This record gives sequence, structure tokens and C-alpha cells, in this order.
Amino acid sequence: MKASQLAKILSGELAGEDIEISGIKGYDEAEKEHITFVADPSLLSAPTDAGALILPKGVQPVEGKTCIFVSNPLEAAVKVATLFYREDWGTGVSDKAVVYPNVKLGKNVVIREFAVVESGVCLEDGVVVLPFAYVGRNSVVGEGTILFPGAVVYPNTVVGKRCRIHAGAVVGADGFGYYEKNGKRVKIPQIGRVVIGNDVEIGANTCIDRATFGKTVIGEGTKIDNLVQIGHNCKIGRDCAFAGQVGISGSVKVGDRVLMGGQVGIADHISIGSDVKIAAKAGVMSDIKDGEAVIGAPAMPAARWKRIQAVINRLPEIYKLLKELKKRVGDVGSN
Amino acid sequence: MKASQLAKILSGELAGEDIEISGIKGYDEAEKEHITFVADPSLLSAPTDAGALILPKGVQPVEGKTCIFVSNPLEAAVKVATLFYREDWGTGVSDKAVVYPNVKLGKNVVIREFAVVESGVCLEDGVVVLPFAYVGRNSVVGEGTILFPGAVVYPNTVVGKRCRIHAGAVVGADGFGYYEKNGKRVKIPQIGRVVIGNDVEIGANTCIDRATFGKTVIGEGTKIDNLVQIGHNCKIGRDCAFAGQVGISGSVKVGDRVLMGGQVGIADHISIGSDVKIAAKAGVMSDIKDGEAVIGAPAMPAARWKRIQAVINRLPEIYKLLKELKKRVGDVGSN
Amino acid sequence: MKASQLAKILSGELAGEDIEISGIKGYDEAEKEHITFVADPSLLSAPTDAGALILPKGVQPVEGKTCIFVSNPLEAAVKVATLFYREDWGTGVSDKAVVYPNVKLGKNVVIREFAVVESGVCLEDGVVVLPFAYVGRNSVVGEGTILFPGAVVYPNTVVGKRCRIHAGAVVGADGFGYYEKNGKRVKIPQIGRVVIGNDVEIGANTCIDRATFGKTVIGEGTKIDNLVQIGHNCKIGRDCAFAGQVGISGSVKVGDRVLMGGQVGIADHISIGSDVKIAAKAGVMSDIKDGEAVIGAPAMPAARWKRIQAVINRLPEIYKLLKELKKRVGDVGSN
Repeated sequence: MKASQLAKILSGELAGEDIEISGIKGYDEAEKEHITFVADPSLLSAPTDAGALILPKGVQPVEGKTCIFVSNPLEAAVKVATLFYREDWGTGVSDKAVVYPNVKLGKNVVIREFAVVESGVCLEDGVVVLPFAYVGRNSVVGEGTILFPGAVVYPNTVVGKRCRIHAGAVVGADGFGYYEKNGKRVKIPQIGRVVIGNDVEIGANTCIDRATFGKTVIGEGTKIDNLVQIGHNCKIGRDCAFAGQVGISGSVKVGDRVLMGGQVGIADHISIGSDVKIAAKAGVMSDIKDGEAVIGAPAMPAARWKRIQAVINRLPEIYKLLKELKKRVGDVGSN
Repeated sequence: MKASQLAKILSGELAGEDIEISGIKGYDEAEKEHITFVADPSLLSAPTDAGALILPKGVQPVEGKTCIFVSNPLEAAVKVATLFYREDWGTGVSDKAVVYPNVKLGKNVVIREFAVVESGVCLEDGVVVLPFAYVGRNSVVGEGTILFPGAVVYPNTVVGKRCRIHAGAVVGADGFGYYEKNGKRVKIPQIGRVVIGNDVEIGANTCIDRATFGKTVIGEGTKIDNLVQIGHNCKIGRDCAFAGQVGISGSVKVGDRVLMGGQVGIADHISIGSDVKIAAKAGVMSDIKDGEAVIGAPAMPAARWKRIQAVINRLPEIYKLLKELKKRVGDVGSN
Repeated sequence: MKASQLAKILSGELAGEDIEISGIKGYDEAEKEHITFVADPSLLSAPTDAGALILPKGVQPVEGKTCIFVSNPLEAAVKVATLFYREDWGTGVSDKAVVYPNVKLGKNVVIREFAVVESGVCLEDGVVVLPFAYVGRNSVVGEGTILFPGAVVYPNTVVGKRCRIHAGAVVGADGFGYYEKNGKRVKIPQIGRVVIGNDVEIGANTCIDRATFGKTVIGEGTKIDNLVQIGHNCKIGRDCAFAGQVGISGSVKVGDRVLMGGQVGIADHISIGSDVKIAAKAGVMSDIKDGEAVIGAPAMPAARWKRIQAVINRLPEIYKLLKELKKRVGDVGSN
């Protein structure tokens, strides 16, 4: 594709030679035939072999490079990536897959070798089920959703449209529910299910447990990174983003647009409002209101945490000062 | 099933119409034909569409609903769930599974499509091996145990009776053992194994490493949630419960009935007594005696932690007070 | 094998009867026909049934046991283990595997039942692909590398020689990259890849994400434990060792020979030097220079952390002292 064509598609301004572009690559990896993008102009101090650059408007053209100036380089790069890169996971239903009778298949469904689709399942149009993916009985998988290799969907699960469930993710395993009797743990049968909204992404090896009774819910548009644990009966809102290794205990309610950093932990039965930000590694042990930002374990409002942390960082000096004071005031205690 | 029949099975008292009940559901999800249960009577302030309720004795009947009064509603609900809900993972040995010669199969063993059972394995009566589950050479799987899709059991493992090993769980992968030589890490071959007792539950994507030499042991009745890591050569006692994302390093000893909250971490070679409670996110760096409750990172007795935490929470004010004191006493230091 | 033969191989000194040895076992598990090893002589106060012992030079022979004295018992034990224990994962390419046309296979490649090797892949000599392992399009797997059951390698990945990728590990899933538009998260296509050096070990259910553009790199000789998350575009150096459940966010740079304890978390875009040691559970929020040892969340130099922690542990007493002082000095504030 010519640089001038790309500039047109991106509604950008072209400067330099109208070269042929074969793809988009990272700044370090790109070669002469590639375009790359620069969101932060300070990056330009390092050299790149890229033949073409997507740059923010207002930046000087780079000598010897074809430049396309746009208002949002990242957004433009995403557009270019979509043009050049098309995922191809195969076509059709493999005769080495197992699809039980009484399964409803939409149009253009892909089921690869060694996938298993159990009885009573509905796979809507364009669903892709890759090798070793498992769809349990009576589950529904929405239009355009892809199950990567080894993704496991337990029975009675509902997965929305355009979801991406990455390799090894497990949706609908038993919640961790027992009651104690004579010092032993008696299993509470986990007979609920998981309901996942549209446009949800579930990272590799992430686990979302089925409800005990009722349902565990993941709201539309929510993005979940790898190795995340979401316990039974959680109700997660829309457009949230949870980073890697977040752990959410059972029966937690989370509002919309909530962000959680990596390794955050949430105690059971907690209620978290909308637009909440929880910093990485925080341990949430009490409810959080709409719009709050929290940090620490136990988690507290970020501003308070910063004040406390500032004092903690000076504790050895503060303790020294206290001992000096004590000496001047006289012996007041046994410390 | 008639409500009166259910009441009889539960040794409960019936009030209201003797309706036909088709199943048990959560309070929010139940419809007219369902029974639900109420452990905490304050829940009754919210409405439910359930036709029937399991209630604790002594609570007032709810108008228009069939009520069954029992001494332990949760235990009764579990009984009802077991009546209505029977897991069905298929039957027989699929001709699309691979079962090597020299495998011992008990009665009523289920091996589903694309499972692999290696040479020298023994699967006792009623074992269920779901698709993509792998049983390595010379392993033994006890009566009634189920391996969910993608569960991997490395060679020479012993799994007890009535265990549930959830999807993606890995039992017996190499311990993380190396020695250093000239700045490189040389692998110590991990030639031990894992031995799991009866009635153990292992959550989705949980990993239990084989011993270097000798064995890693999980005691009878212990329940392990998702994404838990148990290192090589650990000896875990009976009837413990470990919540999601707990991480136990190598060669840790844990007694019986030990509870660990989510994301707890235990350093290697630590010894933990019986009846210990470790709060979520705690980092255990020294031994813990029988019956102790610990919290924090580094972990300490819960009572002490609370006292320290109370002071930490007031540190900005305390520091302010100290500065005031200093002013009054006179300049005593450079802080 | 005779004890005398073993002693010769180990360049050790033999004492006691020249018995026949059938294998090496742990100190607790060994029987008469086995050899075990003792790195720490204090272990000898407990009895063992082992017929033979590998002991450090200078230690007294144990009565009734065959002893081999060496300078490094662990290293000797590893050598013995390698003599007696040979992994056997099968041979040849199973006709129940799926290997696409246009795949290059080296000599002695093993591909087991229900493995899938996609088009354009190159598997070098001696590669072992176990059941349910998946090698995505155009990936290269180096000589002697083994993919355990259920390991998933996404397209365009490069894996070095002699790597061990354990069960359920996922290499090359999408990085967690979105941009926000009108309160929704728009996916940034993850079109980069993962490049793994030689002699890397990747633990069970560990996830290493592909780069957005460009590549995620794991350096030669680096060992990664189970359930570790490594984000998109990370550049990890050589001969590092990361313990279980470590989480490394996107675009982190890590030098050589870096050690991370369990459950460490690293914020995105952090740069970590070589020979750094990061204690378990640390939360790294700023760059770390070569050779530093850090601990805590937020992480700080170990020496500083210890001083602060010592004061924290005495906070209740310190606060009491401060209140006494205040009383003596007179009322100075409202606290």
C-alpha cells in the first residue's frame, strides 16, 4: 500500500516520498518497508530503520523518512494494524472435532481439530473454537466469539458476542464453597452458572467460577487480563479493566468502569462502586464508593495512603527524634 | 417433587400450599416453580419470585409462599441441590480417547474423547477423565475421582478417592530447583512425585509441583481453590482450605485444618502448625504454632497486627503531634 | 550399579560395603537399595533407611551405611539422578496428531496424540510436543525443547533450544492493551510476538504475552516458575530466576541474573538492572539499579526496609511513649 493511500485513510498529512508500505512494526523492529508510530516525540532521539513514521501533528518531519501527521498516532497505528494484520485461525468444522447432536451452529462457525462441543450447545454465527477448547452442555457462545486453545467453558454458561477467551481460561468451574461439619469441609454443590456480556476479553489461564446458586456475571465490555481469579456469585459491571493476577473473592459486586491494577485482592461480599480505581497489589477489605481511588493493603483512599506512606518512609528518623526528645524531657517510660 | 415430600426429607415443618417444586435456585433467580433458601432472615426484606422458601426455625411464615422450616437452611439447601442436580459427564470409554496397553481400569470408568491415559496407569472404579485430561505413566487415580477438561497429571502421581481436579490444574510438574554454577542455573532433575489424599479438591489452573526427591503430599479432605501454587516437597495436612492464588514455596510443612485467605504467600522451608488461620495477602516468613491467627506481610499474630495498624492509620497526626512537642521542647535534632 | 562405580563417577571416596544401588531417593523415602544425599550433616541426627549416603568431605562415616564423600553432595546427587532417571515421553509422530503441510520437522521429533502443529512451523531436532500442546503458525521451536501437555504457543513465536515449557503454559497470548474512547476500551491489535532464548524453563500455567508491536523477549538461561505473568513488550535478560506467581506488567526491562521471590509485582515501563534481588511479595514502582536488593511494597533497598520495619514493629510502644511525653510537656495538640 502506498503511503499516500494510508495518509488518506488516516485523514493525515503526508510529507516525504510516497513509498510502498508492507506493514506496521515496533519502532525498534521496523525496517525500510515498514511504517511505525511515535506517540511521544522524545522517542525520535533514538534511530529507527522504519521507512515511514506516523507522527503527532505539529512535530517536525524527520529527514529521509516518509511522515504521516495525525492527531492521535496510537489510534492511527491501530487502524493501520487492522489493515495489514488479519488473524487467521482456519475455517469450517473439522472432522477431527467432536460436535454432539443437538448442537445449534450458526453460519461460518469454525471448530478446529480436537475441540469438543457438548450436547445442547448453541454457537452463534462466526464463533471460532480452537483445538482443545471445550464447550460444556447447554452453553451459548455469542456471535463472533473466539475460544483459544484449551479454553474451557463449563456447562450452562452464557458467553456474549465478540468475546475473546484466551488459552487455558476456565469459565464456570465450581465456586469454592463448603460448610464445616465436625471439622471437615462439606462441599456445597455449585449449581449456578456464569453469564458473560458482549465484547468481554478474558486473559490466558484466568478463572471465573460458576455461582453456587444463581449466576456470576461479567458485564459488557469488561477486559480481564491473564491469571485473574473471579469467585462465585460475583457481579462485575461494564467496561471494567482488571490487570494480571487480580483476585476477587466470592459474592463481590463491582460497578462500571472500575480499574484494578495487577495482583489486587478483594475480600468476599465487598461492594465496589463505579469509576473506582484500585492500585496494584491493594487489598480491599471494605466497600468503596463511586469514583474513589484506593491503594494499599488494607486499601484506603490514595491521598491518605500517600500521607501515611510519607511518614512511614521517615520512621527511623522520627523514632530517633522521639528518643532525643525523651532524653531532654527526662525518663518518662520504659521504652 | 411435592413440597411436603421435601419437608419430610429435610425433617422440616411445612407451612403453606403443598406446591410442586422443580428445582432450587438463588434468591434473585428463583421463579414460581422453584424453592430457594434464606440463611439470614434480613434477606426477606427484598422480594423473591420463588414459590417456596427454606427458612430457619422460628422465623415467621412469608405470606403467599410455601415455607419449610429447618434448623440449618444451608445444609438443607445442599440436600435439596443434591436431589435436583446431578452432574452428567458422559459414560464409557470413548474410542476417540487414547488408553495405552497395560492400563488397569476399574468398573464404570468414563474416559472421554481426546483424553490420554499412559502406560502403567491405574484408574479405579468410577473415575471420570474428561477431554484433554492427561494421566501420566504409572499414576494411580482413586475411586470416583474426576479430572476435568485439560487437567494434567504428570507421571508417578497418586491421586486419592473422590477428588475433583478442575480444568487446567497441573499436578506433578517439575519443582523449581536449580543450583548455581558460574552464574548459570543448573537444573536439579525433579524425580520425586505428588501424593494426594482422598476427598481433595483442586481448583482450576492450580499447580502442585512434584518433589525433587521424595514426595509432595496433600492430606485427605484438603480443599484448594483456583490458581494456587504449591511448591515441591510440601507436606500439606488434612482438611485445610486454601483460597485463590495462594502461593506456597518449596518444602513447607502445613498441619491440619489450616485456613489460608486469598493471595497468601509462604516462604520456603516454613513450618505451620494445625488449626492456623492466615489472613488474605499475608506473607509468612517464619514458623507458626498450632492455633495461631496471623495477618500482614511479614505475617504476625492478628492481635498485634491490629494494634500496629491502628497506629499506622494515625501516623500523619502522630507525626504532627511529635513536631509540636519538638517545638515546645526546643530544637533537639535536625529532623 | 555398584557403589564403587558411583564413587568413581563422582570422584568421591568410598567407605563401607560396596553394595548394589538401584536408584536415588529422598532422605525420608530411600530404602536399603537406594542412595540418598546429605548436604547438611545436621540432617544425620534423623534416621534413614537408605543403604548408601552421599556426604560432604570431612564428615564421619555413618555406621552400617555405605558412604561416598564428595566436595558438593547436591551436585553429586544431581549427577546420580541423571544416571538413574531418564524421562521417557514417547517416540515418533503419532497418526493421531495433526501436523499441517508446510511444517519442517527435524530428526527424532516426537509429536504425541492430539497435538496440533500449524502451517509454517519449524520443529528442530529432538523437539517433543506432548498431547494437547499447540504450536501456532510460523512458530519455530529449537532443538531439544519439550512442550508439556496443554502448553500453547501462539503464532509467530520463537522458542530456543533445550527449553521446557510446562503444562498449561501460554506463550504469546494477546498483550493487555486498549485505549479509551468514550468510556469504552478499544482493543489495540496485538501483532507482535514472543522470542524465547535457549535453556529457558517456563512453569506450568505461566503466561508470557506477545508484544503489541515488536517483541517480548526472554533471555537465555532464564528460569520461570509456575503461574507467572509476563506482560507484553517485556525484555527479560539472561539467567534470571522468577519464583511462582510473579507478575511483570507491560514494557518492563529486566537485566541479567535477576532473582524475584514469589508474588513479586513490577509496574509497567520499569527498568531493572542486572544482579538485582527482589524479595517475595515486593511491589516495584520505580527503577532499580544493578546489584541492588529490594523488599517491600512499595519496594525499597533491603537495609532501609529493615530499619523501617523495626520501627513499625514497635509502633504501639512508641505511640505510648509519645503520649507520655506529651503529658509531661503539656497539652500541645488535639491528638
